[in-house]
Amino acid sequence: MDPVKKYVQEQKDRFVKELAGFLRIPSVSAKSERREACRQAADFLLQELGRLGFSTSLHETPGHPIVTASRMDDPAQPTVLIYGHYDVQPEEPLDLWTSPPFEPRIVNGNLYARGASDDKGQLYAHIKAVETLIRTEGKLPVNVTFLLEGEEEIASTHLEAFIEENREILQGDVAVISDSSQYGPGMPAICYGLRGICADEIRVQGANRDLHSGSYGGAVPNPCNVLCEIIAKLKDETGRIQIPGFYEDVLELEAWEREAFAALAGDDEDFRRQLGVAGLHGEEGYTTLERKWARPTLDVNGLFGGYSGEGAKTIIPAWAGAKITMRLVPNQQPDKIRHLFREYVRRVAPAYVTVSFVDHSGGGPVRIPRDAPFMNTAVQALEYGFGRKPVFIREGGSIPVVSTLERKLGLKTLLLGFGLPDDNAHAPDEKFSLADYERGILTSARFLQLCAKTAGAETR
Amino acid sequence: MDPVKKYVQEQKDRFVKELAGFLRIPSVSAKSERREACRQAADFLLQELGRLGFSTSLHETPGHPIVTASRMDDPAQPTVLIYGHYDVQPEEPLDLWTSPPFEPRIVNGNLYARGASDDKGQLYAHIKAVETLIRTEGKLPVNVTFLLEGEEEIASTHLEAFIEENREILQGDVAVISDSSQYGPGMPAICYGLRGICADEIRVQGANRDLHSGSYGGAVPNPCNVLCEIIAKLKDETGRIQIPGFYEDVLELEAWEREAFAALAGDDEDFRRQLGVAGLHGEEGYTTLERKWARPTLDVNGLFGGYSGEGAKTIIPAWAGAKITMRLVPNQQPDKIRHLFREYVRRVAPAYVTVSFVDHSGGGPVRIPRDAPFMNTAVQALEYGFGRKPVFIREGGSIPVVSTLERKLGLKTLLLGFGLPDDNAHAPDEKFSLADYERGILTSARFLQLCAKTAGAETR
Repeated sequence: MDPVKKYVQEQKDRFVKELAGFLRIPSVSAKSERREACRQAADFLLQELGRLGFSTSLHETPGHPIVTASRMDDPAQPTVLIYGHYDVQPEEPLDLWTSPPFEPRIVNGNLYARGASDDKGQLYAHIKAVETLIRTEGKLPVNVTFLLEGEEEIASTHLEAFIEENREILQGDVAVISDSSQYGPGMPAICYGLRGICADEIRVQGANRDLHSGSYGGAVPNPCNVLCEIIAKLKDETGRIQIPGFYEDVLELEAWEREAFAALAGDDEDFRRQLGVAGLHGEEGYTTLERKWARPTLDVNGLFGGYSGEGAKTIIPAWAGAKITMRLVPNQQPDKIRHLFREYVRRVAPAYVTVSFVDHSGGGPVRIPRDAPFMNTAVQALEYGFGRKPVFIREGGSIPVVSTLERKLGLKTLLLGFGLPDDNAHAPDEKFSLADYERGILTSARFLQLCAKTAGAETR
Repeated sequence: MDPVKKYVQEQKDRFVKELAGFLRIPSVSAKSERREACRQAADFLLQELGRLGFSTSLHETPGHPIVTASRMDDPAQPTVLIYGHYDVQPEEPLDLWTSPPFEPRIVNGNLYARGASDDKGQLYAHIKAVETLIRTEGKLPVNVTFLLEGEEEIASTHLEAFIEENREILQGDVAVISDSSQYGPGMPAICYGLRGICADEIRVQGANRDLHSGSYGGAVPNPCNVLCEIIAKLKDETGRIQIPGFYEDVLELEAWEREAFAALAGDDEDFRRQLGVAGLHGEEGYTTLERKWARPTLDVNGLFGGYSGEGAKTIIPAWAGAKITMRLVPNQQPDKIRHLFREYVRRVAPAYVTVSFVDHSGGGPVRIPRDAPFMNTAVQALEYGFGRKPVFIREGGSIPVVSTLERKLGLKTLLLGFGLPDDNAHAPDEKFSLADYERGILTSARFLQLCAKTAGAETR
């Protein structure tokens, strides 16, 4: 038996106990009364990595602290940057939890607790992997830097500025993040593409006050009607976005991707039934997976204006608004899309209302090429850990840190999800399978070993 | 000097004092803690009309009581039904009142108090008119029935059923309501047309829950976008409503009306500036007054769905809704319009969402023909009271009781507004000019006298 597998087998009960200790800290970043708990979680990581011989630092931010830890065992070897977050989602609604969210419990091989999968469990698998290598090999085969934040669940408010100001300690050759999931049980995956986002808000102003719809109706513009007319012009009936230039930078799907997605596709009718929607709808000429993973979108997230209470109120509202997110795909850029969006809205808006915008920020899309550094290494490591070759997937959401790492540090990120789609991240009864925890540790350890080999040095 | 004018001159100070007493009762129908005050206002009217020799009744309803009072002085004479309401709007915001709303105060010839103009002052002018006639002539020249409710400001919830059940005591030849205003200072008006209303709500349902706009966006319908697309199809860019059959029953403006409206028209640019809107907008081919008084409308009164708080929330909302009122003109019927509206919405809604509706009720439009009974009598009475011939106007809002009186009792209503457009009805510092109060009393007394003459009997 190889020494890594042997060590993990021997130590796995302790590994679970230690993770449970980490999960007991209620580090909910969104709650000010949990500020101390967040600091406690950061300290937990600091001490753990300190004991493993890492040089550790706690960096204060206006919010929760950021932890960095480095072991530079061999300057000739590549450096792997491992990102994770120690903060967790709020635990509410409490009454839907089978057992208390911060009292970890094992049931049928799953560890139940808030943060078990997102992201404490997955992040801790990497820490147990470096421990395993250090204890079995005496040192790490490559250099490793951990970047661990406490604000991922509240939009990573202070992370980008931190990375910008601390470039020198964050240098590396590749980044690894485990904060997502396998494609399905026993189907390890590498996520090589993420959509970006451009979030904006349209405000349409009519009169300077709400007007009586009887006394004024018919003679003055209605901002609610006008807003609807503007939004209706953003897409045609086939789902195609009508903003000129919107698709200009879109990277079309390659043939191998369409084939790979087709092989992964679920049943559309099952999908429809599970959502309880009358019908599916999306851009013509694309499958459901292609629409979710590789095509840009324009969705209204909220509509508001006038009266929304019980019964009727006979007014012409003074103003109306809509929150809109556009999901972007490689190589669309949020700033350019925002500009095109606003230009088009201004153009189609009638002159008898006043239109303004609120910037809700954005983030770029990500695509890691198949021939990116260490991509094949990740494939081999996952095969070792999970006993099966990973599939290549994309994800329709955004993980802003991935695009930040690329822009600020020039790093490509390998997204190795150890969790499962049904781990209840952000929901009651969050869990992490103990088998996946172990597979994650093996995968991470193997990845670090293979990174050294790939560098060509026969040092081991 | 004619005895009516002489009596009013002599008694006017007392008339003001008595009205002030009525105004001191805080009969806000919307507030449950003012239930007793509403009953007190009803009692005040009951006693006052009792003292004037009327047979009075207090009719309990599930809400506030209805007062009826009749004097049938000569069965050979016509009967005039006078409608009014003793309830008032809530007084808030209190800090914007110059003096307390239920402590009447006279400043520069205006009586300030909640209800001064809407409707206690105008209603009381009719009571002082019958007093004047009884004291100067010993009896009333015609038969008079008062119908006085306490729920006008809360949608006259129990009035229609009451009228339906009490038809025999409400029989008459014509109805008079003074609950509106002159066209401008010193410009008495007869309002001969009101718009009706059809209030409905559209609900668009997508998935059975809010979905992550990253993970699902592009592959599932978005109810907010779809709702906007539906609403955009309700009107074209010239403001014309696109519902088939919508205009079928619309009575076109007659040539004399277009001329009369043109003579009354204000300056559009002043109107625009006062509303603070970028531009006016309405149905092509019609002036502002025509659009407000005589053309049907379709206005969104409220839009809602998804997230409307601060910042962004990346969801595809499960559902969205819009409250809509259509203002109707003669001879459109609310039920037919609701049917056409829903049929059209269902037809343009895509099959991949589920559409439903909420009925927020409606009321018919009203048009009193120029040759209606007692119309010329009203013209002469207003000329007597105000010293100037009235103009013929319409109003864009609805006064549901007018259509109820026509449907249930076959009565045409004469809308004689004694107030002014700037009386601050429903607002702080509501007022009623003492001069208009006096003119109202004279107008009402003259109208009752002339009704008798018109009936052809030389009995006086």
